[in-house]
Amino acid sequence: MDFTFAQRVKDLKGSAIRESFKALSRPGMISFAGGMPDPSTYPVEEINTIANEIFSETPITALQYGITEGYAPLIEQTRKRLSNAKIGSEDDSLIITSGGQQAIELITKALINEGDGIACEVPSFIGALNAFRSYNARLYSVPVEDDGMNIDILDKTLSENKNIKFIYTIPTFQNPSGITMSLEKRKQLLDVAKRHNVLILEDNPYGELRFAGKDVPTLKSLDNDGIVMYVGSYSKILAPGLRVGFLLAQKDIVEKAVVCKQVSDVHTGVLSQMIVSKYLEKYDINEQIKKSANLNGKKCALMLKFIDKYFPSDVSRTSPEGGLFLWCDLGRDIDSIEFAAKCVEKNVAIVSGASAMPDTSKKTSTFRLNFSMASEEKLELGIKTIGDVIRSYGR
Amino acid sequence: MDFTFAQRVKDLKGSAIRESFKALSRPGMISFAGGMPDPSTYPVEEINTIANEIFSETPITALQYGITEGYAPLIEQTRKRLSNAKIGSEDDSLIITSGGQQAIELITKALINEGDGIACEVPSFIGALNAFRSYNARLYSVPVEDDGMNIDILDKTLSENKNIKFIYTIPTFQNPSGITMSLEKRKQLLDVAKRHNVLILEDNPYGELRFAGKDVPTLKSLDNDGIVMYVGSYSKILAPGLRVGFLLAQKDIVEKAVVCKQVSDVHTGVLSQMIVSKYLEKYDINEQIKKSANLNGKKCALMLKFIDKYFPSDVSRTSPEGGLFLWCDLGRDIDSIEFAAKCVEKNVAIVSGASAMPDTSKKTSTFRLNFSMASEEKLELGIKTIGDVIRSYGR
Repeated sequence: MDFTFAQRVKDLKGSAIRESFKALSRPGMISFAGGMPDPSTYPVEEINTIANEIFSETPITALQYGITEGYAPLIEQTRKRLSNAKIGSEDDSLIITSGGQQAIELITKALINEGDGIACEVPSFIGALNAFRSYNARLYSVPVEDDGMNIDILDKTLSENKNIKFIYTIPTFQNPSGITMSLEKRKQLLDVAKRHNVLILEDNPYGELRFAGKDVPTLKSLDNDGIVMYVGSYSKILAPGLRVGFLLAQKDIVEKAVVCKQVSDVHTGVLSQMIVSKYLEKYDINEQIKKSANLNGKKCALMLKFIDKYFPSDVSRTSPEGGLFLWCDLGRDIDSIEFAAKCVEKNVAIVSGASAMPDTSKKTSTFRLNFSMASEEKLELGIKTIGDVIRSYGR
Repeated sequence: MDFTFAQRVKDLKGSAIRESFKALSRPGMISFAGGMPDPSTYPVEEINTIANEIFSETPITALQYGITEGYAPLIEQTRKRLSNAKIGSEDDSLIITSGGQQAIELITKALINEGDGIACEVPSFIGALNAFRSYNARLYSVPVEDDGMNIDILDKTLSENKNIKFIYTIPTFQNPSGITMSLEKRKQLLDVAKRHNVLILEDNPYGELRFAGKDVPTLKSLDNDGIVMYVGSYSKILAPGLRVGFLLAQKDIVEKAVVCKQVSDVHTGVLSQMIVSKYLEKYDINEQIKKSANLNGKKCALMLKFIDKYFPSDVSRTSPEGGLFLWCDLGRDIDSIEFAAKCVEKNVAIVSGASAMPDTSKKTSTFRLNFSMASEEKLELGIKTIGDVIRSYGR
């Protein structure tokens, strides 16, 4: 039987990050590769209590088909949380998705014809980049600086490429860099997007996980023209295995996303949605977020301390004020794919910066470190080991 | 802000069936429109026990990210169940999907370029048809007869349209017709597909829900050449709200489906997968299926009895031996979309045959009835009401 795969996915490869999960089962492996919260923060007792209640009070609702838009009480609760942060207007609607990833995929499917362009941060989130690639979008690179996207380059890129349909950004505690876009740049970004008549996809799974510094308003809360499509998730603030995220955007975009979701998975698992909804009803999720962010902050500080102790001084690194990741640059002619493989040999998993590049043809000496998962002890051993690998290259 | 939707989804409409769910909340509405098992068959107690066990024994596994392929024990259990029915070989692999719908969407995304063709049964399942449309596939119509697809027309269609990439069929207790393809036609179908070098997508969510007649082997169990991609689901035999289905196909197709699923929803909710897995481990799902199928059979017999009592004798109907649906044809020049609307006015929801047509430009006088959901009392009232609506057209 001869057959060929569709053009759009012929060359699509699995995420190197998710592939690395398979190596993580090796005994003694220290992982700075994942992107999940510390599991010790999951509210296990509470969720167990909730599940019990659901099965004694409304089991049929949890097991029966639901509507594609999502579980109505969860939609309302999510809109209320967003509205407290001044996110969303009467012109918007919200759909519950199977994680934030699905929201990104639905938007791409709904908006991108083959050859249409998407302006992406360099570095950016591989899951989104691969979703874009899976519809044969052209990715245009816009560098991220210490205070976010280089707006001049973005402006120039949009001027030169009229096929660009939207700008993809993770403005707060960016994955993978940990960088937060300044308020000034946010305003500039909105202006530039408006001037060029392109939409913005704001991906904000980490925004509430701040452990230092001051809140910066989301792009969506600064948007008076309905140009921002806002993706959020309960994965990083409650539990990722439940697969509950959402898309808030102008009504016609959400309506089209609903039609696309209907043919994709009909609706997000109802039990998962009800668990999140009951959690929001019965417990204080802001307390849960604070607890989780504080732990992340403690671990981040430790990781930075060990980096400064064990890495050669010419290795640069970011200083996140929240989220789950920081970003290093070896600053030398070292290919980070090979470098990451050497670290895995020494039982430390990291993510090569190569997977975060919209343009995969460029070599990079960068890599991503997750600071939320490893224990304090392993944090030191892991960073020391990476330091040894760096030194093994000599000067 | 000006923007246009992508060509592939510009004209895509929501499923009429799912839209009709919104009317179902009207008091007194009798629904023959849905496609779900009778909720009284859901093993609520068992699932509650299981959820408790999961949260006391392995809560972190349930709440943490999982791998894209699916929860390993569930993959193994599903393969074992399939293997007991002689489905699948060493050359196949299996991915857990977010319902059978997702398996269909992933296959389409992986295989169909714009303008590629898919041979579809007439009538067929709207969820699949819309998934195909959402990638701009061309749909080719092959009529379903009392013993399944017309194989001569299929053969001719494949000869004349070399762009056809696969044949989509629900051979057992078809949605919407309730018809089962004969063994002879299954063998012919495999021969024709092989001769024309096209794949087959066998969608089998209802196959185990037999209440009369004798089992017919699945296409996949008759396939020695790896040309059948097999989609199954726990939705109709356990609980649809959990969104757990699967795709079994040759390894390279499943590998590509994994890459596509990674960018779609990362993985299916782990808690849902663990619930299904534990259910398979601790309870006898075949008993559960038998109980559910028996109830369906009883209700189907009742519905047929009432149809024969209340419908004019020139209305034809199928006689399913399993599944959830039967199919009627008014056999007159009545547009079934208008007819379905009149039934809804009289508080009975049915599904117009129009939504089941690969070619939406053709009018049809057919409609689908679900017999699993309504109570015995409502079955009689609902069918009697539909009979009155038919008679209101006069002769």
